[in-house]
Amino acid sequence: MAGLQVCSVLVTGANRGIGLGLVRHFLEMLNPPGWVFAACRDPKGQRAQELQNLASKHPNLVIIPLEVSDPSSIKAAAARVGEHLGDSGLNLLINNAGIVKLNSLDTETLEDMTQVYTTNTVGPLLLGQAFLPLLKKAAQGSQGSVLSCSKAAIINMSSHGGSITSSFGWDQLQVISYRCSKAALNMLTKCQSLGYRQHGVLCVALHPGWVQTDMGASAGHTPPVTVDASVGGMLKVLSSLSEKDTGTFLDWEGKVVPW
Amino acid sequence: MAGLQVCSVLVTGANRGIGLGLVRHFLEMLNPPGWVFAACRDPKGQRAQELQNLASKHPNLVIIPLEVSDPSSIKAAAARVGEHLGDSGLNLLINNAGIVKLNSLDTETLEDMTQVYTTNTVGPLLLGQAFLPLLKKAAQGSQGSVLSCSKAAIINMSSHGGSITSSFGWDQLQVISYRCSKAALNMLTKCQSLGYRQHGVLCVALHPGWVQTDMGASAGHTPPVTVDASVGGMLKVLSSLSEKDTGTFLDWEGKVVPW
Repeated sequence: MAGLQVCSVLVTGANRGIGLGLVRHFLEMLNPPGWVFAACRDPKGQRAQELQNLASKHPNLVIIPLEVSDPSSIKAAAARVGEHLGDSGLNLLINNAGIVKLNSLDTETLEDMTQVYTTNTVGPLLLGQAFLPLLKKAAQGSQGSVLSCSKAAIINMSSHGGSITSSFGWDQLQVISYRCSKAALNMLTKCQSLGYRQHGVLCVALHPGWVQTDMGASAGHTPPVTVDASVGGMLKVLSSLSEKDTGTFLDWEGKVVPW
Repeated sequence: MAGLQVCSVLVTGANRGIGLGLVRHFLEMLNPPGWVFAACRDPKGQRAQELQNLASKHPNLVIIPLEVSDPSSIKAAAARVGEHLGDSGLNLLINNAGIVKLNSLDTETLEDMTQVYTTNTVGPLLLGQAFLPLLKKAAQGSQGSVLSCSKAAIINMSSHGGSITSSFGWDQLQVISYRCSKAALNMLTKCQSLGYRQHGVLCVALHPGWVQTDMGASAGHTPPVTVDASVGGMLKVLSSLSEKDTGTFLDWEGKVVPW
């Protein structure tokens, strides 16, 4: 991970699972970011206890309240992060927050389709809009013109389950709302890569693997990948990304996932 | 089109554009369906005038009130169609109703993202659920075990703009909400093909071409394809579909569109 020189990073859904794992790994780097912004719904609640413990030991960790389905909460979070950064920009926005509803094709509803789409797809769109000024500032402030995660990037946490080509795991979990939201998130990633390239911002969709988290273990399954292995793999992938990778869909081991 | 022997078909968004073109073509077939159900929001309104004129000449045309973003309206439409069909099933459900909002990556909103997704993606899901009993009945009532549009099928009207691979037309129209909704609709089509195959229902996503309709001509563009050419092409494609095609994404000339 010598290649990942990030001055500032924001992770959404940072109070548990992969989000918390990402925060831990950033803090434990030999050359850790000056700012690690950990966004979650209720920073003072019981479910953010581990983040609070980390923050008491790491002055470079800032917990940011954020409800990704609420546009005004997103704007407030961007303003708060901007205040901390002062004249600097944000290098890395990791849209990790996501939800799943265990519905089948027969039981899926309008309400669940809408709620999952709002959190998993619309949230990352609005976060991209709100943090674009800070990402642009980071891009303008870094040397060279080549895209990279050390310069400025949006990482959207997608899923192999959102691959239309593979329809991975259909026999175990139908989760239509989740699959549709992730396919749409992949499209958003492609659109962001086309629209934000001119601003020096790299955009990638990542599949973290089938990870041992509350979400990964839903419906009684036992996922094969630990949080540490997934996060370690993804950070290695991030450190290797360049111009040619923007707008692609990669897994935690760097392999291309088909749309 | 000799191959397309459809006893009954329902077309959503049937009062104009491609939907109206499909209804016309079905009515004008040498061997027209016994029932053509034309669904639209306001069957008695000014915007359904052409459908009303057609219905006065064609007793096999039934106009059905339907708001595809309203689950209770969808259920009522399925009940009404079921009453007309009596002991028969429905061969063909064409999810054609769709909307577009001319937003860019910068101007897209939560409200438009949600509204477009509800109409373009959730609607086809709920219609599939509501009409599944009628589609199953048609499949059970037809000879042979091979999937086909003459037996039972769901056709989801997608768009090349929903192809993540091609990001077709990005320089002309960003329309993030539309692209995301169509990528999600493609995922839904794949899921429906996997879930409904056991019931004998074929499921395909179709790109109608860039067609001379109100929607196609939005933002001042002049589309190259006439409604007649698009609809004629699509019906030819439908007549040729079989087992191997379920879960695919095809254009109006039968070419595979990449996800």
